[in-house]
Parts: sequence; structure tokens; C-alpha cells
Amino acid sequence: MYKINDNYLKLPGRYLFSFIEKKVAAFREKHPDKKVIPLGIGDVTQPLAPTIINTLHYVVDEMKNADTFKGYAPSSGYEFLRNAIVKGDYRSRDVDISIDEIFVSDGAKCDAGNIQEIFSIDNKIAVCDPIYPVYLDTNVMAGRTGTYDETTQRWSDVIYMPCTPDNNFAPELPKETPDIIYLCFPNNPTGTTITKDQLQVWVDYANRVGAVIIYDAAYEAYISEDNVPHTIYECEGAKTCAIELKSFSKNAGFTGVRLGYTVVPKDLKRSNVSLNALWARRQATKYNGAPYIVQRAGEAVYSKSGREQIKKQIDYYMNNAKVICEGLRSAGYHVFGGVNAPYIWLKTPNDMTSWEFFDYLLENANVVGTPGVGFGPQGEGYFRLTAFGTYENTVEAVERIKKL
Amino acid sequence: MYKINDNYLKLPGRYLFSFIEKKVAAFREKHPDKKVIPLGIGDVTQPLAPTIINTLHYVVDEMKNADTFKGYAPSSGYEFLRNAIVKGDYRSRDVDISIDEIFVSDGAKCDAGNIQEIFSIDNKIAVCDPIYPVYLDTNVMAGRTGTYDETTQRWSDVIYMPCTPDNNFAPELPKETPDIIYLCFPNNPTGTTITKDQLQVWVDYANRVGAVIIYDAAYEAYISEDNVPHTIYECEGAKTCAIELKSFSKNAGFTGVRLGYTVVPKDLKRSNVSLNALWARRQATKYNGAPYIVQRAGEAVYSKSGREQIKKQIDYYMNNAKVICEGLRSAGYHVFGGVNAPYIWLKTPNDMTSWEFFDYLLENANVVGTPGVGFGPQGEGYFRLTAFGTYENTVEAVERIKKL
Repeated sequence: MYKINDNYLKLPGRYLFSFIEKKVAAFREKHPDKKVIPLGIGDVTQPLAPTIINTLHYVVDEMKNADTFKGYAPSSGYEFLRNAIVKGDYRSRDVDISIDEIFVSDGAKCDAGNIQEIFSIDNKIAVCDPIYPVYLDTNVMAGRTGTYDETTQRWSDVIYMPCTPDNNFAPELPKETPDIIYLCFPNNPTGTTITKDQLQVWVDYANRVGAVIIYDAAYEAYISEDNVPHTIYECEGAKTCAIELKSFSKNAGFTGVRLGYTVVPKDLKRSNVSLNALWARRQATKYNGAPYIVQRAGEAVYSKSGREQIKKQIDYYMNNAKVICEGLRSAGYHVFGGVNAPYIWLKTPNDMTSWEFFDYLLENANVVGTPGVGFGPQGEGYFRLTAFGTYENTVEAVERIKKL
Repeated sequence: MYKINDNYLKLPGRYLFSFIEKKVAAFREKHPDKKVIPLGIGDVTQPLAPTIINTLHYVVDEMKNADTFKGYAPSSGYEFLRNAIVKGDYRSRDVDISIDEIFVSDGAKCDAGNIQEIFSIDNKIAVCDPIYPVYLDTNVMAGRTGTYDETTQRWSDVIYMPCTPDNNFAPELPKETPDIIYLCFPNNPTGTTITKDQLQVWVDYANRVGAVIIYDAAYEAYISEDNVPHTIYECEGAKTCAIELKSFSKNAGFTGVRLGYTVVPKDLKRSNVSLNALWARRQATKYNGAPYIVQRAGEAVYSKSGREQIKKQIDYYMNNAKVICEGLRSAGYHVFGGVNAPYIWLKTPNDMTSWEFFDYLLENANVVGTPGVGFGPQGEGYFRLTAFGTYENTVEAVERIKKL
């Protein structure tokens, strides 16, 4: 008689964003006359850039002729895209990554969820608190996290690294030694980041204790300050301790197009076993490559016109971030992030809990945000707004919040 | 100090098709003058149907305007596609499946690899021998298969169900009771299938012993005979014991477009835990939905013109299958399959091993097939050819083989 994977039953509640979606749907049904402004889920609103559209039309036509039709893609991605990635994201920063260290996928969420599979169940993970829920939930599903304590909202076998205003949202090296360390900079959800020197401390630490860093750099394109690393491989020694996750979702608006990639350096080894080979095997066995037309669209992101058009989209969203930060500050809110990332992290007013503020904002300003506590217990009393709305909606949402 | 997932190290050799690809590349380099005809990997050669191309152009243009742009898709798929699937693949056969039992994905390979995650590691799997390697390899990676015996080429904790000419390639109910049973009909690699009555025996058995059937129906569109089930849910009681995997790769030529779906009935429960809910949670946590434009292309597969055009492609490939079967039979080969599936399974001549015949065929006819032993020990002495080549290449390949 088959048994289910009991670890799934340990997961408390529902996936955060599905739950928010349901709450909003219920509100809309009750108040069909109200215009709800969504600044919750980190989904983009700007359409695909003209260069991407043109490329898609061109490659769709390739699929209509037998001579240019493309079937199964290489499971780790077409060379044309991996070359563009190496050139555009690494060589341009004097970082030496080769194309067989790049694994193209249908998005960073999948990679963030799947990467733990190549590690032993016995490994202990360290995560920031607050944190993007996928890192933690996928380890829960795999059985790597022990038991959940409803009171502390913490797993027994997980090392938590609080990120609060007290440490400028920069996690401190944990007292207990972890095996796998999840880091995300610029950070989701806090919108804050760390400097290259601070990240070097983590790389040195990981190499010293034999830990591996899963480095999520999905928001790299939003970095505006000089001393912030665009890739962990800017740090010396990162190739022997770090895997990097990258996404096309937020920089190029590919949330509905689906494209990402993961870097697993060939120098990353344990007892002479190459993690690059393990991930290659994982992908070849369980994955059949991102769609050809999508990979060509990804290549176009690195073209001259693609880069220019995408830069404008990023500027657009970062202007929204500025509108939110300045507006809320003028209304007396304590606001963080929004400078190197499209997220704004704010302290809820009047000691409201995160969910109280969620309901308050939805009811009174018809604005949807994300309760900080959904990202971990240290997020309690905080709230995330995204800069991915339209400019008009963002301005209106801020005005509504200011009037409360 | 982190440890790797040791189960990966138990996997013998490389992923079958990557290995063949390398052998062929080496041959091409040595003999650049030879025209190699690939009838190995099951990749299609016909371009996308006109209706699919038109749809793709239309929806690409939707992505260029903010009003029609689509970001994140629902993780289980857009309703328009799930409705088309329910109507086209189930209601049309008087099978009652609802849209919240359909989970759209980027391909059946991913689903076939990921579905085991919702089951306990302690479950014992039963697989046909020969078998599509993904079912077995993904269970090896998860640690569900014990140890590998190089001599017998078998895993200690796996129940093997031989499929040979002696039983008409229809597996018998296993003596030892399994927890998870993988079945694929029409079958890859043998190209054979079973009747609805035979499948009903499996459904009754699974319900009786409390096993779950993972039913891979990727080749359903190639069924030409009346008594062959198009979906396992044609069998009474299947909804309490079976998960079905479907693909758009082979029927609509989506190998490079990437689309599939999985059916997890709501009646499928263990100790009151819904497997539908577990899979929904898995997908919501680790997956971000198939691309919008691809899901619209999938919807077009079910349109009147889409169905007509795709029917022609299937007829084209099945004509190839006939050419291969008749040609090889006339040359004295023992040939199986090719009637309800685009695969032809043949006995190697002169007691050659599968790999000997692979090399022999590559060297002397410059034709690439897949060694039967790559699908399991019972595949030794057999060889798989696919009908997915062009008509011209298929005819030429058969002529070359006949001349050997």
C-alpha cells in the first residue's frame, strides 16, 4: 500500500501568494465597484520590449518550416544563449565563467526549488529571516527541516539568520555551522542589499566551514549603487563554494515567458564529486530544456536594442520605488529598500501585525501588499510593497495610503 | 560540511540519449562525408502546424501591449487550456475529469520525473522491463531503489515486470506487491500496447492492493485500433488509483515548444490526504506555470483546424512506421510495434547485442537507432527505431538496412 510523502503535511498553511490571491478575490467579489491596486506579488506590468517581440515573431516563423524547425533543446540550454549570458553577465564584469557552467531553465523559482535535490537530506540549511518562501518550503518537502513549532514559527533543524533594522538587514554569520546557506541579494522581500566586502565575508566563511551558498541574484539588474556585487563570483573563492541563480523575469519582464539560469562552477566539488556534473545529470534526467523560441527571446535581451529597452523598463520601476519610498516617508512610515531592488519594506504603523495591516490596507485603501510575516517570523510587523505596478497605479496607491 | 545526494552516484553511466548523442557526434566528426539518418531519439521532424504558428503570432502580439500582456500564469495552468483539455481529451470520450484535476506543465518528462516526490521514500516501485529510463532514474535519485547489481543490471528494491514477445509485451501482475506502478501505453520503447480489458485488470489490481498507477499516455494520439484505451480513466475505478501523464510533444510536435499535463483525480486519496492537493502544493511551490504563449498554442491544438492539421502529421509518422515495419519484415527482421505507436521494436539479427547492432548500423548504414538494452536488461538483443524521421529519410534508412 503506497504511502505519501509525509513531509508535505508538515507545511503550515498554504503557499503565501495563493492565499493572498484568494483573499483579494473574495474582497473583489464583495466590492465589485472598488478599484483594487495590486502591489503584492512581484509580477511585472510593462509589456515585453519591442526587440523581444520582434525576435519572437522571427523565431515563431522558424518553427513553421522543417528546415528551421527546432525539436528537443539541449537540457542545459542552447549555446547561443549560454554564450550571450557568459558575455553579457560575466565577462563584462571580468568574471570568468564558462558556458558549460551555465544551465538554462524555465525560471529561477524552479531552480531554487530543485537545486536542493543534489544535496544529502542530512544537510542543515541556513536561511535569512524573512525569506522568499520557496527556499524553505522545498527543503521542508524534502524532509530536511525537522519539526515545526507553531509558537516560534520555526523549524527545529533550520538555522535562522535574522535580518532586521538592527543589522541593516545584513545577516550575521550563524553561531551553528550550516551546510547549505541561502542568500538573496538584492533581497526579496526586504529590498535591501549588502556590499561586495560583506559578501566576501560569506564566501570566505563558506569555504572555511565547507558550506555551499545558494546565491539568488534574481534582482541584480536593479542595483544602482557602486559597491554592490552583481554576481557572487565577483568575490574571490566563490567558485569553490557558491551556486548562483538568475532570472529573466524581473529584468526583462519574462514572468509569463519563463526563463532563468543557474551557474554551477566546475570548481565546486565535494570529495572529488563535481556538483556541476550532478546538476547536469539532474537536468538531463528530469528536464527537457526551455522552449527554443523563449531561449531566442532571452538572447535578444543581451542585444544592444534589447539592453537599451530593458534599461528603460528598470528605470520605470525604480522610479515607482522612489515614489513609494518618498510618499510613505512623507506620511511618517519607516521605509527600507527600494534603492537597489524593486521592493519596499515598511514597518506597519501603530504596532499592527502584518496581516492586520494587510486587511486594513485592502479594506481602506484597496491596495494589496504582502504581509511581512509571510516571509518569516522576523517579518512580523513589516509589509512588502512592489514597484512593479504601473506608474499611475503606484502614484494613486501612495496617495490613498497617505490619506489614511 | 555539506554532503551531496549520494544516490546520484549509484546511477550507472550516463543518461542514455546524451550518451548516444556523443557517439553519433564522434562518428560524424570521423566521417563528415556520410549522411547520418537519425531514427534514435523520439524527436519530431515535421514543423508546427499552420494553426499553431498563427496562434503564436497572435499571442506574441498580446505580449507587446500592457493591456493584453500576461505575467505569471496560474501554476496549474490557465483555465482556457484546462477547459480545452477536459473537453478534447476526456468529455469527448465520456470520461468525467474536471478542470481542477488537470495540471498543465512544460512537458511529460518533467512530470514523470517530479511526480514521485509526493510519495514516501519507503514505497516500492514496479516498472516494466524495458522502460523509459526517466521513471527509474528519478526514483534512483530519490533513494527509492536500493543497490544496483552490475551483473543482473537490476536494482535490489525495484520490482521488474518483463515485457517480451513471450507475453506480447503486456506485463503480468507482479508476484511481490508494489506501491507505485509505472505503466506506459502505447509503450515506449516497444511500440506495443494493451487492450482496455487488460488495463482494467491493472486498475482492479491497484485498487485491491492499494497501489498507485503512474500512467504515461504520451503516445495516445497514435492509437489506431479500437480496443485500445486512450486514457486510463476509461477503466472503472481508475480515479481512485491512477495518475495520468500526457504530452503535447509527439501529437502536436511540441518537443521544442514544451507542454504537457498531468491528471490527478480528486478521488485519489491515502488516509484522507488528497494527492490532488499534494501535487497542487508541489507545483505551486516549485513551478511557475508554462509560458502563456505556449498554453495558447496548446489550446489551438484542440481547435477544428488544429485537430485536422495534427491528424495529418500523425498519419505522416504512422506511414513511416508502416514503411519501417514492412521493409524490415521483408528483410527477415522480427519486428514489433508500429501500429498504435510511432516506435518499432526489432530483434537484432545474428544474436548481436543491442550495442553491437547500434555500432553495426551506424557504421554500415549510417542509421542511428536506440539500443534496446538502454531501456533495461530485457531490452538486450532488441533495438528501437522511431517513425519521427522525414518520409524520405525513413525510406532511405530502410533501403540501407535492407541492403546490409
